[in-house]
Amino acid sequence: MANRPKPREVLTTRLQPRSGLTIGVDIGGTKVLAGVVDGDGRVLETVRRQTPDRSKRPDVVEATIVEVVHELSARHRVAAVGVGAAGFVDSSRSTVLFSPHLSWRNEPLKAALHHHIRLPVVIDNDANMTAWAEYRFGAARGYRHALCVTMGTGIGGALLVDGRIFRGGNGMAGEFGHMQVVPQGRRCECGNRGCWEQYCSGNALVREARELLAAQSPVAHQLRALTDDDASRLSGPIVTAAASAGDPAAIELFEEIGAWLGTGLANLCAAFDPDRIIVGGGVSEAGDLLLDPAREALRRSLTGRGFRPEPPVVRAHLGADAGFVGAADMARSALGRSRRSSRRRSRRRDQ
Amino acid sequence: MANRPKPREVLTTRLQPRSGLTIGVDIGGTKVLAGVVDGDGRVLETVRRQTPDRSKRPDVVEATIVEVVHELSARHRVAAVGVGAAGFVDSSRSTVLFSPHLSWRNEPLKAALHHHIRLPVVIDNDANMTAWAEYRFGAARGYRHALCVTMGTGIGGALLVDGRIFRGGNGMAGEFGHMQVVPQGRRCECGNRGCWEQYCSGNALVREARELLAAQSPVAHQLRALTDDDASRLSGPIVTAAASAGDPAAIELFEEIGAWLGTGLANLCAAFDPDRIIVGGGVSEAGDLLLDPAREALRRSLTGRGFRPEPPVVRAHLGADAGFVGAADMARSALGRSRRSSRRRSRRRDQ
Repeated sequence: MANRPKPREVLTTRLQPRSGLTIGVDIGGTKVLAGVVDGDGRVLETVRRQTPDRSKRPDVVEATIVEVVHELSARHRVAAVGVGAAGFVDSSRSTVLFSPHLSWRNEPLKAALHHHIRLPVVIDNDANMTAWAEYRFGAARGYRHALCVTMGTGIGGALLVDGRIFRGGNGMAGEFGHMQVVPQGRRCECGNRGCWEQYCSGNALVREARELLAAQSPVAHQLRALTDDDASRLSGPIVTAAASAGDPAAIELFEEIGAWLGTGLANLCAAFDPDRIIVGGGVSEAGDLLLDPAREALRRSLTGRGFRPEPPVVRAHLGADAGFVGAADMARSALGRSRRSSRRRSRRRDQ
Repeated sequence: MANRPKPREVLTTRLQPRSGLTIGVDIGGTKVLAGVVDGDGRVLETVRRQTPDRSKRPDVVEATIVEVVHELSARHRVAAVGVGAAGFVDSSRSTVLFSPHLSWRNEPLKAALHHHIRLPVVIDNDANMTAWAEYRFGAARGYRHALCVTMGTGIGGALLVDGRIFRGGNGMAGEFGHMQVVPQGRRCECGNRGCWEQYCSGNALVREARELLAAQSPVAHQLRALTDDDASRLSGPIVTAAASAGDPAAIELFEEIGAWLGTGLANLCAAFDPDRIIVGGGVSEAGDLLLDPAREALRRSLTGRGFRPEPPVVRAHLGADAGFVGAADMARSALGRSRRSSRRRSRRRDQ
């Protein structure tokens, strides 16, 4: 929690509730992270839960969201709530149509939450929330056409066009993780085969590490020691820690998914020609162990290379907080818009 | 030339030069097509040349452009010229940075043409010009987020965002044909391997047809008869004619590239979520022989299918004319902008 403010700042903000505190909730494939955020993107408090299993009914996830919101709003005077969901959100931003990693199918999330949370609620795709946070307060600030990729359980994505999230015709743009990179490749949770996130995500990292252990290869001895020879204990953070400590096998695993990251980014450069690429999500905690191989693969497979600028590939600045910070800030923006439009309405009535 | 107007219309337009005739020139990988176009997208006259070979110096292509512009402007009073080039055009839209199918490398095309053409010149990527024509006068009219794919020698692409061509950070967005669909796949003219256009383009169609002939398969007997058993005579139009006449082998060839088209479009739907997909270029002349297999593959591989609308895949309305019609119209738009800004300047001087 490096960016949690000092107590003095908390006090100042609580004495000035009009500066507008909002809550952001980030629902990922494995964890729910929520926080109270002020208008400058500062985080006042966070809470964290496990994401209920995909086998659970949708209202179990919703109960978790309501619980963390109640917990935070009991301690802070908040004006609105933003929720970033790992799924396809419709263009009215009220329904989660489909989520590869959660149990939501045509789930009217906004209505369901509204029933329990007596505050304005905004929902959007989690990667859009992350990109928004990076654009407002982080690595995408000042870039007109930034592309954001979040590597967590799967791959989330978002494109900023002239400083606005591009949502496409039905609100579902940016699902880069479900672009096919291998014909007839690995089966994906979305139902297709060969999706990018099957080769380049937290899930892919852990799967490859487990296969390495299962192969009984001598190169995996450090990973084996770290997990007491129990592959089920392997996790993304363990592989990241091993790679950071210099374990060649763990470094190789990052080189492999990093190369897939770069190849996929080259595809996105062909399509979007972004001026900056931001990589966030849990897997990006590995930093240059992931990004250097990605940059190398991008350099090698960028179409028209040598005749065009190479977009810089940088790590997200806000780390794991980005999702809920963006959600909170988007809720604040929506509040501003709705206040402005109600002022316009009341002025019209007065005239 | 089904859409060439009747002589009466030509006369009317020539008597009213202020309605604004412009010339559009479309430089493809195999042919140069130019035409005189009015403000409603009507084509008054067209001329056509072979594209000079890739081995030729860039100024040979430029001389061809100048020649067709002089030929047309001798017979019509035109106000501006638009040129669509099959290549990566920089964000200032004056230089062709790179062209996989032509000899241009960092070629200052606008300056080179300006030297010989005493009219305002606008250049842009050929697929952007095509998309613009379809948006103004054709199949993309009224769609906010239309995606256009032109299948000619290679694949050109363009995305419309809120009715504007999305150009990306450096002017090079929309190069969908150079997204990798097969790891370590076929070598592409862009220098990479496995690019989409290696499996889904006019070149791919002809290459596959030639391989079929070379395999001496009995299924290829009709294609063999049509070319006097000389595979070098095979061309896209011949395969299209054979498929249209019911030749099962030619139909199969379209099914194969159609399936690749649908798979690639599914990728683009994951990324962009367009509300309509327009397929143009010479290969699209085959109509549903190409588009039906594409629609089937898209339906089969659209991520989140069943929980999202499927975008309609339609054939471009303007056919082979789209490139130069869009170029002419973009030149007219630029003219309007520059006249408006010079009027503003002169008003400021007068004040």
